[in-house]
Amino acid sequence: MTDQNVPRQILLTPGPLTTAEPTRRAMLRDWGSRDGAFIAMTARVRQRLTALAGGADSHVCVPVQGSGTFAVEATIGTLVSRETSKALVLVNGAYGRRIVRICEVAGRAYSVYETAEDTPPDPTRVAAMLADDAALTHVVLVHCETTSGILNPLAEIAGVVEAAGRKLIVDAMSSFGALEIDCRALRIEAVIASANKGLEGTPGLGYAIIEKQALAAAKGNAHALSLDLFDQHEYMERTGQWRFTPPTHVLAALDAALEAHQAEGGVAARGARYSGNRDILLNGLRALGFETFLPDALQAPVIVTVRMPADPEFSFQTLYDALNAQGIVLYPGAVTQEKSFRIGCIGQVFAADMRRTIDAIAAALDDMGVTPTGLKPAA
Amino acid sequence: MTDQNVPRQILLTPGPLTTAEPTRRAMLRDWGSRDGAFIAMTARVRQRLTALAGGADSHVCVPVQGSGTFAVEATIGTLVSRETSKALVLVNGAYGRRIVRICEVAGRAYSVYETAEDTPPDPTRVAAMLADDAALTHVVLVHCETTSGILNPLAEIAGVVEAAGRKLIVDAMSSFGALEIDCRALRIEAVIASANKGLEGTPGLGYAIIEKQALAAAKGNAHALSLDLFDQHEYMERTGQWRFTPPTHVLAALDAALEAHQAEGGVAARGARYSGNRDILLNGLRALGFETFLPDALQAPVIVTVRMPADPEFSFQTLYDALNAQGIVLYPGAVTQEKSFRIGCIGQVFAADMRRTIDAIAAALDDMGVTPTGLKPAA
Repeated sequence: MTDQNVPRQILLTPGPLTTAEPTRRAMLRDWGSRDGAFIAMTARVRQRLTALAGGADSHVCVPVQGSGTFAVEATIGTLVSRETSKALVLVNGAYGRRIVRICEVAGRAYSVYETAEDTPPDPTRVAAMLADDAALTHVVLVHCETTSGILNPLAEIAGVVEAAGRKLIVDAMSSFGALEIDCRALRIEAVIASANKGLEGTPGLGYAIIEKQALAAAKGNAHALSLDLFDQHEYMERTGQWRFTPPTHVLAALDAALEAHQAEGGVAARGARYSGNRDILLNGLRALGFETFLPDALQAPVIVTVRMPADPEFSFQTLYDALNAQGIVLYPGAVTQEKSFRIGCIGQVFAADMRRTIDAIAAALDDMGVTPTGLKPAA
Repeated sequence: MTDQNVPRQILLTPGPLTTAEPTRRAMLRDWGSRDGAFIAMTARVRQRLTALAGGADSHVCVPVQGSGTFAVEATIGTLVSRETSKALVLVNGAYGRRIVRICEVAGRAYSVYETAEDTPPDPTRVAAMLADDAALTHVVLVHCETTSGILNPLAEIAGVVEAAGRKLIVDAMSSFGALEIDCRALRIEAVIASANKGLEGTPGLGYAIIEKQALAAAKGNAHALSLDLFDQHEYMERTGQWRFTPPTHVLAALDAALEAHQAEGGVAARGARYSGNRDILLNGLRALGFETFLPDALQAPVIVTVRMPADPEFSFQTLYDALNAQGIVLYPGAVTQEKSFRIGCIGQVFAADMRRTIDAIAAALDDMGVTPTGLKPAA
């Protein structure tokens, strides 16, 4: 049923992303998950991830099976105590709202500071909210909210949270590995990400890089056995093994992907490639007549949101299908409250892929008979 | 760092298992998880898994990211209500005890009926316990408890549970795909398994095959957002997609593995191969002088537990290392309460592999200078 004889897939979505062939080929071997070779691979991956966050002296990396959301839920469940904590969740998109939902399901106390999808949270307002509510112990920030592609002000928020003596949890799902997050420069209790975003591994595991003393104090907090990062860490430190069967092939792919990340030049080089991709997208889309959603200063090099054209001749489904036939996969549908579509620029994709994408979009517009004027959004 | 130029790994563990090369090669392509081709693959896999359980008319398959334990926890959290349910957990090994732990963490009411690790639960006793406690709504059974390799009496337990008007949840992690489980013949509310046992996919996802009306009544039960099978199912039925990023490559491997399972001849043929593997192991180990843990009538064709020899010349670590050097990976360490070690016989392994394993063990014993008499366990 599965056909490997298909052209390379260019996934311009928020994930899963395009991976490199050596990364996928690392999945061609089986591993005994409790064998020495796999234990060494787990240790190597954890050490590299911790170092990438600048946490080698202060933090530990705890991986967890599942998607990025599993890692977010596990981190919040483990670090935000049901009895003694309260989280201030900063929301400007679907991923922030999902964190609120996690707090609800897990029975965690929380407040929400929500801004519009094109508006970052104001650090001054965060400081005021922390000053006003002594019960707040944690702030949870989505670094890049892929709902719109907005980059939220991590350093400024970290500053006010530290000044207020509270803890910061950062959902860095789509930024980690491509944008600098340095736990030596910023006080961050936990950075959460997954194998399959800026690191360009395959999907199937997430991880949190957590301050050692915060994790040590988290015994018994978790609301689910499978999502207990205290237990996962304790067992991993004691045995080198995962508590429950790990996705062995996915970890091997991440190990290879981390090697490739370093070979490319680390966070700076990866971020530069993604920024170049973004700029080709932004310039190309605007030259065709599209309007993008965010001002450039807020546009992360992750995903570009395009306002839906008003022209009835324009059909997103037709555009989607035309690109799909060429192996270019977009995210099918909008998640912003305003009508829009999104084109990602992360993963194992390069300037030539982005130019090819712009050309394919231009050809599809020609076929639809949509002119630049028709690409303006409805007023 | 990763080296694919290693000989084929023969994993004789309870999992991860040896997979077939075409299964691993199915992971060489990237998939957009919200694209039509991947949606079709998800539907195909779910339909096949439901049919394998004999549940095409009555049940639905709900997959979940993570290991088998994630699927067990998700199923219990979704089906066993915090307010109105109470589970009777049948325990004769580590996996049964883990289900008890899940009930504790998730705050589910439960009772335990525990038997020794070589003793199946007595259906008459289960019937009596159900008669004695009207609050009990569910019975949870581990079909094959891989702690020892014991096969628990599924049909008999299902009979008394149905007669008592209660619901049965079966952890069929290591039996599904190799031993018949037919939801037309037995009343089973949920069968839980994973991609990487008898179906010989790669690890990274589990699933439950759940009675439709039980799932329909389970809204809001789950104790964790990521583990909510009601929500996962509702979203999947509505969109064809997974709620959160699926392990796309792992699903593609499972799709290929299901194709191979059918080509081999389905459950009967897979079970026959595993039974043949088990018999070569049992006979070979006994011919060498080892004592196995279970009577043959209780020995599932999954994993064989060997009593630890008393002879101080015998070193399990030396045996482990000798086999490991030849690409044969055992489970390092015991989980039974008695000292023992285990050798699995499931996965993409064949009679020749089992004979090679026996030969390698014989050679290692020679090197250690251990005679058959020395392989008797301590009295």
